[in-house]
Amino acid sequence: LADDQAEDVRSLLAGLSATGQAEILEQVAEPERDKLVAILKKDLDPETLIELDEEILEDVLDQLDSKDIAAAARELETDDAAAIIEELPEQERQEVLAELPAAERAEIESALAYPEGTAGRLMQRSLVKIPDGWTVGEVIDHCREATDLPDDVYDIFVVDPEGRLRGSVPLGRMLRTKRPVPIADIVDPDIPSVPASADQVEVAHLFRDKNLVSCPVVDVRGRLEGVIMVDDVVDVIDEEAEEDILRMGGVGIDDMHAPPVRTARLRAVWLTVNLATAILASLVIGQFEGAIEKIVALAVLMPIVASMGGNAGTQTVTVAVRALATGQLTAANALRFIAKEAAVGGLNGMIFALLMGAAVVGWYGDWRLGAVIAAAMICNLIAAALAGTLIPLSLQKFGVDPAVSSTVFLTTVTDVIGFLAFLGLATVFLL
Amino acid sequence: LADDQAEDVRSLLAGLSATGQAEILEQVAEPERDKLVAILKKDLDPETLIELDEEILEDVLDQLDSKDIAAAARELETDDAAAIIEELPEQERQEVLAELPAAERAEIESALAYPEGTAGRLMQRSLVKIPDGWTVGEVIDHCREATDLPDDVYDIFVVDPEGRLRGSVPLGRMLRTKRPVPIADIVDPDIPSVPASADQVEVAHLFRDKNLVSCPVVDVRGRLEGVIMVDDVVDVIDEEAEEDILRMGGVGIDDMHAPPVRTARLRAVWLTVNLATAILASLVIGQFEGAIEKIVALAVLMPIVASMGGNAGTQTVTVAVRALATGQLTAANALRFIAKEAAVGGLNGMIFALLMGAAVVGWYGDWRLGAVIAAAMICNLIAAALAGTLIPLSLQKFGVDPAVSSTVFLTTVTDVIGFLAFLGLATVFLL
Repeated sequence: LADDQAEDVRSLLAGLSATGQAEILEQVAEPERDKLVAILKKDLDPETLIELDEEILEDVLDQLDSKDIAAAARELETDDAAAIIEELPEQERQEVLAELPAAERAEIESALAYPEGTAGRLMQRSLVKIPDGWTVGEVIDHCREATDLPDDVYDIFVVDPEGRLRGSVPLGRMLRTKRPVPIADIVDPDIPSVPASADQVEVAHLFRDKNLVSCPVVDVRGRLEGVIMVDDVVDVIDEEAEEDILRMGGVGIDDMHAPPVRTARLRAVWLTVNLATAILASLVIGQFEGAIEKIVALAVLMPIVASMGGNAGTQTVTVAVRALATGQLTAANALRFIAKEAAVGGLNGMIFALLMGAAVVGWYGDWRLGAVIAAAMICNLIAAALAGTLIPLSLQKFGVDPAVSSTVFLTTVTDVIGFLAFLGLATVFLL
Repeated sequence: LADDQAEDVRSLLAGLSATGQAEILEQVAEPERDKLVAILKKDLDPETLIELDEEILEDVLDQLDSKDIAAAARELETDDAAAIIEELPEQERQEVLAELPAAERAEIESALAYPEGTAGRLMQRSLVKIPDGWTVGEVIDHCREATDLPDDVYDIFVVDPEGRLRGSVPLGRMLRTKRPVPIADIVDPDIPSVPASADQVEVAHLFRDKNLVSCPVVDVRGRLEGVIMVDDVVDVIDEEAEEDILRMGGVGIDDMHAPPVRTARLRAVWLTVNLATAILASLVIGQFEGAIEKIVALAVLMPIVASMGGNAGTQTVTVAVRALATGQLTAANALRFIAKEAAVGGLNGMIFALLMGAAVVGWYGDWRLGAVIAAAMICNLIAAALAGTLIPLSLQKFGVDPAVSSTVFLTTVTDVIGFLAFLGLATVFLL
C-alpha cells in the first residue's frame, strides 16, 4: 500500500463487485483500511456500504464527508440508505440529509421513523401503484411513460381511490393478457400484506411459508406504503440464523470486528454465569471430600460422568431449541418429545454405562467401582435428556429465548447430577 | 379423531394452507397421522408434501397410492415433484412415473438424473426462452399466445440459435419498452448463470452476494436448461443454517422425527468421541493421584478451571466457525484474529484469575492455593483462545468442516491444559 501504488490499488478495487470491496475492507486492519477508503473515494460502490459489518461501516463512514455519503445514499434504495444514515452521529446525519434532494430526504426520514427491524424499515417505496379502474393497456402505457421505475418490479399493485390496497397482478400475467382487459379481471384480491410496524422476523416467516417474492406493506388504515422484496428478506434470514448460532455459543453480534476490550467485556458476562455454575458443581464435590480422600480414583473418574451428561444434554437442547424456533415443537407434542428423548437418554445411558463400567473394572480391577460409575452414567444421561427438553420448554413458556440460556442451565444440571450421583453412590456402596 | 368427526376434521384441515397442514401432520403421532392422511386424501394440498420433514414424508407417502402421488406431482414444480418421487422405493417410483403424462415424466426423470443438492435438481424448467433476433412486441405476443407459462416469471431469457444463453431482460424493463425495439437493445448480456452440476450451497451464496431473484442454469455447453427461483434458494439457506446449528450441537438432520433407537445410534457416535476425550482428561488427572490424595481441595477446584476454559474456548470457536463460513476470516486476516482472541483470552483470564484466586483464599484460607488456581486460569483461558482459533483454521485448511468437529477438539485441549496446569502447578508449588 505504498503511495506510488495508489492508482493500481484503486483500479483493482474499483473493478470488484460490492461484495468483493466489502470483503477486502473487512479483512484489512484499521490504518490500511482508512488508506484504502481514501484511495477509493469516488470508486467506492455505494452497495459496498450495505455489505459491511456495523463496526467496519462506522469506521468507513468516519472517512467520508457528508457530500460523499449523500451521493452514495442517492444511489441506494430507501431502506438501504436509511440503514446507513442511521449509523451516523446526529449532527452528521442532519448534514447528509441536507445534501439530499427534498423528495429523497422525505423518503429516508419517513423510513427512519420506523424502528430498526420492522417492515416499515425494510420496505422500498418505489413501486407501481395503479387505480382499480384501469385496463392492461393503460397500465403498460403508464409504465412506458414513467422513467423512474426500477428494473426489479415483479408485481403491480392495485389501490382504491383512498389508496387502500386492493390486490396485485404478477407482471408475467400482465404481459400475457390482451390490452383491453380490465385490470380488475386479472387482479389477485387475496394477497398477503404486512403492516409497516410488523417485526422483520415475522415478515421473513411469511415469505418462507408462502414462498413470496415481494410483499406489500400497508399502514394502519390499509393504505399501500411500500413493498418488501425477497432479497432484503434473505438478509434478514441470514442475520437471524447468524444471531441464533452466535447466541448459542455465548457471544454477541459483530463480535469479530469489535476491539478486544469490548469483546472481552461482553463475553465476561457469560463467563461469570459459567463461573457461578462451576462453583456450584464444586460445592457438590466439596461435600464428598472424605470419600475422595479414601478413594482417589473417584476424583479421576468423576469428570467423565459429568462430561458425558453435558454432551448428551447439549444434543437434546440443540434439537429442542431448533424445533421450538421452527414451530415443530409445541404444547401438542411436547410430552411425546420428552418421552422420546428420555428413551434415547436411557438407551445411550445403558450403552455407555456398560462401556465405562467395563473400562473401569479393567483399569482399577474393582467391579464395585465399575458398577457405581455405570449406575451414575445411566442416571446422568436420563437427567440430561429430561433437563435438555424441560429447560428450553420452560424458558420458552416464560418468554425467555431458549437459544441463549438453555445450555448454561443444562450443564449446571448435568454437572451437579453427575457429581452427586457418582460420588453419592460411591459413598453409599464403596465406603 | 373419532370416526363420526371425520368430516369435521377433513373440512378443517382442507381449509388450512400447505404449511398449516404440514405442521399438523408433523405434530400428531403415527397412528393418528395415518388416520388424518386417510381422511384428508384428495384435500391434501400437494404443496404440503414439500413442507414435511423427510421422516414424516416417507410415512405419509406410504399411506398414498401411486395415483394420488402422481396427481400431486403433476401440480408441483418439477424440482419439488422430483424431491418427493425420490423418497419412494424403486418399484413405486416407477409406478408413479408411469401414471404421469410423457412430457412431465421426462422432465422429472431428467431432474432426478442430477444428484440431490445440485443446481440441476433445484431448477425449474418452465421459463420464457426467446431467440435473440426478436423485438419487444414479438415477445409480448409470444407470451400472450403461450398458455402454459407460470405466473412467477420475472426475467425473459435470450438464447442464440444453438440454445446457448445470451442474456436476460427483466420483465419490468420489457414492459417499459416500446414494441418495435429489438430485444438485443435491452438485453443484459453479463448476467450470472450456474452450471447444472453446481452445488446448491454455492448457488445460495451467489443469490445472496448478487441479490438475485432468479438465475439461469446452463449445461456444459452453455445451453439454457432451466431457472432457479429465489424461493427455492431461501429453503436452501434455511436448510444450511439448520444443518450448521444441529451439527455444532452434535446431532444430525431430521433428528426430531426419527425413531428413538435410530436417534440413539446416531448420537452415540458423537458421545463415543466425547468419551474418548473425557478418558484422555482422566488419564491426565490420574498422573496427579498423589497430589490429590494430599490436598483434596485440588479435586474440588479442578473442574472449575477446565469448565472456564471450555466456555471461553467455545465462544472463540463459535465466532471463528461463523467467520470462516461467511468468508470474513481468511488467510489474510487470520493472524490478526488470533492475536485479538489471545488478547481477549488474556484479559478475561486475568479478571477471572483474580476473582477465583480471591474466592479460594477466602474459602480455604490458603493464598498459595489461590495463586495456583489464578495462574492455571490465565494459562487455560489463553490456551482456549489459541485452540479456539487454530483448531477451526486448521480443520478448514485440511478440508474438514470446522462446524462439526471443532468443539470436541477444543474441549479436549481445554480439559487437558486445565487439569495439567492446575494440578501440575499445585504439585510444584504446594507439595
